[in-house]
Amino acid sequence: MSKQSKDGINRREVLGSGLTVATIAGTGGLATGGAGALTLAGVRPAHADEQSKINVPPGKLDQYYGFWSGGHSGELRILGLPSMRELMRIPVFNRCSATGWGRTNESLRILTEGLTPKTKEYLASIGMSTFHNGDLHHPRPSYADGRYDGRYVFVNDKANCRVGRVRLDVMKTDKIVEIPNAHAIHGLRLQRYPKTGYVFCNGEFRVPVHNDGRDLDDYKKWNSIFTALDGDTMQIAWQVKVSGNLDNNDADYKGKYVASTCYDAEEGITLAEMTAWDKDHVVVFNIKAIEQAIADGNYEEVNGVKIVDGTKASKLNVTRYIPIATSPHGCQAAPDGKYLVISGKLSPTVTIIEWDKLDELFAGKIKENDAIVGNLEVGLGPLHTTFDGRGNCYTALFIDSQVVKWNLDEALRAYKGEKVNPIKQKIDIHYQVGHVNSTLGETKDADGKWAVALCKFSKDRFLNVGPLKPENDQLIDISGEEMKLVHDGPTFAEPHDATIMPASLLKPIEIWKRDDPMFAYPREWAKKDGITLEDDNKVIRDGNKVRVYMTSSAPAFGIEHFKVKEGNEVTVFVTNVDDIVDLTHGFTLVGYGIAMEIGPQATSSVTFKAGKPGVVYYYCQWFCHALHMEMQGQMLVEKA
Amino acid sequence: MSKQSKDGINRREVLGSGLTVATIAGTGGLATGGAGALTLAGVRPAHADEQSKINVPPGKLDQYYGFWSGGHSGELRILGLPSMRELMRIPVFNRCSATGWGRTNESLRILTEGLTPKTKEYLASIGMSTFHNGDLHHPRPSYADGRYDGRYVFVNDKANCRVGRVRLDVMKTDKIVEIPNAHAIHGLRLQRYPKTGYVFCNGEFRVPVHNDGRDLDDYKKWNSIFTALDGDTMQIAWQVKVSGNLDNNDADYKGKYVASTCYDAEEGITLAEMTAWDKDHVVVFNIKAIEQAIADGNYEEVNGVKIVDGTKASKLNVTRYIPIATSPHGCQAAPDGKYLVISGKLSPTVTIIEWDKLDELFAGKIKENDAIVGNLEVGLGPLHTTFDGRGNCYTALFIDSQVVKWNLDEALRAYKGEKVNPIKQKIDIHYQVGHVNSTLGETKDADGKWAVALCKFSKDRFLNVGPLKPENDQLIDISGEEMKLVHDGPTFAEPHDATIMPASLLKPIEIWKRDDPMFAYPREWAKKDGITLEDDNKVIRDGNKVRVYMTSSAPAFGIEHFKVKEGNEVTVFVTNVDDIVDLTHGFTLVGYGIAMEIGPQATSSVTFKAGKPGVVYYYCQWFCHALHMEMQGQMLVEKA
Repeated sequence: MSKQSKDGINRREVLGSGLTVATIAGTGGLATGGAGALTLAGVRPAHADEQSKINVPPGKLDQYYGFWSGGHSGELRILGLPSMRELMRIPVFNRCSATGWGRTNESLRILTEGLTPKTKEYLASIGMSTFHNGDLHHPRPSYADGRYDGRYVFVNDKANCRVGRVRLDVMKTDKIVEIPNAHAIHGLRLQRYPKTGYVFCNGEFRVPVHNDGRDLDDYKKWNSIFTALDGDTMQIAWQVKVSGNLDNNDADYKGKYVASTCYDAEEGITLAEMTAWDKDHVVVFNIKAIEQAIADGNYEEVNGVKIVDGTKASKLNVTRYIPIATSPHGCQAAPDGKYLVISGKLSPTVTIIEWDKLDELFAGKIKENDAIVGNLEVGLGPLHTTFDGRGNCYTALFIDSQVVKWNLDEALRAYKGEKVNPIKQKIDIHYQVGHVNSTLGETKDADGKWAVALCKFSKDRFLNVGPLKPENDQLIDISGEEMKLVHDGPTFAEPHDATIMPASLLKPIEIWKRDDPMFAYPREWAKKDGITLEDDNKVIRDGNKVRVYMTSSAPAFGIEHFKVKEGNEVTVFVTNVDDIVDLTHGFTLVGYGIAMEIGPQATSSVTFKAGKPGVVYYYCQWFCHALHMEMQGQMLVEKA
Repeated sequence: MSKQSKDGINRREVLGSGLTVATIAGTGGLATGGAGALTLAGVRPAHADEQSKINVPPGKLDQYYGFWSGGHSGELRILGLPSMRELMRIPVFNRCSATGWGRTNESLRILTEGLTPKTKEYLASIGMSTFHNGDLHHPRPSYADGRYDGRYVFVNDKANCRVGRVRLDVMKTDKIVEIPNAHAIHGLRLQRYPKTGYVFCNGEFRVPVHNDGRDLDDYKKWNSIFTALDGDTMQIAWQVKVSGNLDNNDADYKGKYVASTCYDAEEGITLAEMTAWDKDHVVVFNIKAIEQAIADGNYEEVNGVKIVDGTKASKLNVTRYIPIATSPHGCQAAPDGKYLVISGKLSPTVTIIEWDKLDELFAGKIKENDAIVGNLEVGLGPLHTTFDGRGNCYTALFIDSQVVKWNLDEALRAYKGEKVNPIKQKIDIHYQVGHVNSTLGETKDADGKWAVALCKFSKDRFLNVGPLKPENDQLIDISGEEMKLVHDGPTFAEPHDATIMPASLLKPIEIWKRDDPMFAYPREWAKKDGITLEDDNKVIRDGNKVRVYMTSSAPAFGIEHFKVKEGNEVTVFVTNVDDIVDLTHGFTLVGYGIAMEIGPQATSSVTFKAGKPGVVYYYCQWFCHALHMEMQGQMLVEKA
């Protein structure tokens, strides 16, 4: 059934632990040649009845919300399943031309207030106030007792070391914090019990903990930093300094442990060094022990954050390092609450750790290896695993370009020596799959209906769009005995990871509440200026500063013209007084690089310097009315 | 059949020419209340066999490329039809976190070199070099003799007065120019014969032609500017000063005329003024006459551009103003080459103009009204019209939320007094439709297979995603006698307009050619520094400037570490030497707000200031290899 057995070749041989870069380049097996060898003919075509399951015809709604990573596009996306249609883009770390995210005062406050002093200083030195890009990998909805509670989705930014939070009541980003001391936040998972709680953030790369120019050439002194962020306050609770680097992580269902994969136990900084050993590790964090270390004062404070020593040399008993075959990647807790599945990447195996064994490990009753209760060969390049709630696991095989379905209980029994074959099915997909995610697969409620395989390459799967290709999110029906590939979904860079929940779990509001914290900035100024945002259309002149308060109601702005002088610092506040669902207004100022969204009953504002004298129009860019084109006004700039 | 006849009410009554804002707000008919009144029950559900027509299962390709406006998202999108999947986003006027568009040296050259001196000066005064937003309305593929020739797609930016060009061989933006003198480029259409040729750009808003602070309060002296841009050189050929404002436009199939709708013949600047009269106009431009006026020296040169007087007062005979019922909007040339269809917006009519009559009009043989050969009542809020190549027209009705199919020949006959009913069918859609576009409908080859209705509102059509809703691109099967609605496609702001062509018309390359003009900047520097981009991995130190040249080949950068000093101006050039289809690399510098795409055989570069001393990683963000995570390096910043 597996590619390996069909071929009669165990490709593990070319991936031996003595792996070198030259070997990889030579075989082409690890590189993209592997995908090229897999033809379209390798895919079992979907039947008409399978196709019909994903049709969501006009007038019908999708059954699931999918929260999709936007990868280096920096945004979070909402998809509908099973149609796989993109329902909304939520700007987080990116700059958004349509909504003004990254340009409005409200968004800039969110984007700047959580930056570290060092970053603020650097950005100021180049005339910037924030970043305009991000690398958003892992969207994780908040939990209460192992179930999604519908409050937030947390996301990481690998590019600029940040964590963001999206409110699920309005589907907008409300907080972004930079994580000091850590470098490149990669793995991000949440505390499941009793609730979120902690947001666990992996600083992927090793740097000097005091990264101020010391130890530049002494890279053996560099460390990775693991961070627990308080998901309610978005303040950093504590950090742990570890040996090796940190890739992906996951938390248990009891609120006791978090585990993280490491692909560079060697602590190298070249590819050859990083892949030198045949073992890396999973580091396990004992949450209570770390909290106790903090309480006991066993920490170093760096840049305002308490860092506990969790390196191999530490005596604090806050971490354990479980050896794993070289360069593991995915780290996923099974919904049964008992097991953690590590995907091997360079090893063709998945390794199963039992959470409860960690009590004994930290108590010194067993050795690290004794926490491992399963180790199954699944195919080449296992990267991530998801679950169906019926005891089966689905592991993405990057090199084989397959998803393999295997049974967890049988894998445990096989590890004990029983003669069972836990492998149930392999399905070919296209190409270079990364994450695989199932409906509710990261919760107690895993329902085993659908899985998505997020593929990095898509060549020949879609119309040719030039050198840059889309990714390919493939939808797999996992509801029956057999997996069935039913849909190819092209997506812009990069659907790195996804979480999927039933539509019934969320009830977003459709019209903003006037007291929403998002409008704190306009409210502060309105109070100072004696303005009622919902009613007043007034221009306040305050020395060189001009504040223009206007309402918008289809198809007119409350102010049709206003005057300023060249060089004035102008702030325009627009309050959308329409309270009709879907009636968003916009404010675009021509030739000023300014456009912003103002949702129904929302206020948005933007500040800019008035330029050369002349007539400058503003207009509504969100279609609102038959007379939408006529929704315009003029800023008249006079000589200073 | 029509909503009107069902209701027994002609809603035209509430839309009389004496229209006021108060009336609109009161009835809710013109505003969004109209959509609210249309329930899901109003839509005829699609049958299973219609659904199956749009299924493009795994392993199959779409049949059409769709070039989709990204509206105020500033990007151009490529969709596949009939699946309606988004295949690629092409950044144009926006800033793109994933590709580095708006941050790399190559993109910044394109984004800055076409700006006017005035804009450059203003941007420099606020520490910027370009805009990071745009409002892209009308994507128009280039023509040869009325057919798409596959060279370019041209796009407008209403927000910042620009026109961009996308190369269809690589599907990337290669030129952006700001249009001086004009204000807010809206309508954009192309010369169809003999080829493109001219790009015709409507400056929507009226401003003083010398917009330098004069005539701020004397708005009767303001004018709109019509621009002809040379599509090959992207230089401005000429401009025409007109009376009234300019909305949408279109060109004929003989290369003689362009026409443009005007919704403010009143030359007002308030909503009440703009809608005061019961007539507006279509202005017609005589291309040869304008070229002759330029040749004869009958122009004023403003900001380096020759402007011909085409106002109503002009004696040059370069324009004609054809009266049309108040506030027309869409302006579409039928594929038969003979007729132009004007959609009435506030009038429930479409008006048909015969191109050949314009010869007689400019010759003074007929009056303006004589160029009109049809005037048909189609329903409330006609905005745009498209065609099936079989003599039928499809007009979007914004207020009725319908598409109406009508026969052009019968409309001409009805205008002559014959008793025919040109209206063939009305189909309910959801909600607030703007453009409607058919496959090849803007060319001689209109094939009448599919049409898309681009709807501005989507409430209740998709899962609720909070106050901001997606738009809704609805796919209609127009291949038979009866229109059939088959698909709802949610899209992020704003699918303003689209053009659709068969897949066979385009053959994009998959791997960059090393001599591509896109890499001119790196080549210039490499030549100065004696570097071979495809081979060398070198650091050049040049006073305070450091130039880092490196290759990338999965899974490694050619340089794994380099040193700079705090405050150095650093430029990193990365050349992707992999020549494998879909093997794009990335370069992200952690904590520097920098990420860029480097396609197979491409070179990209970015310049930045080195910040505080310390270790800074760079990594590849486009998944490229099983060891992708390991594709990383360090910039070591030393004390100055």
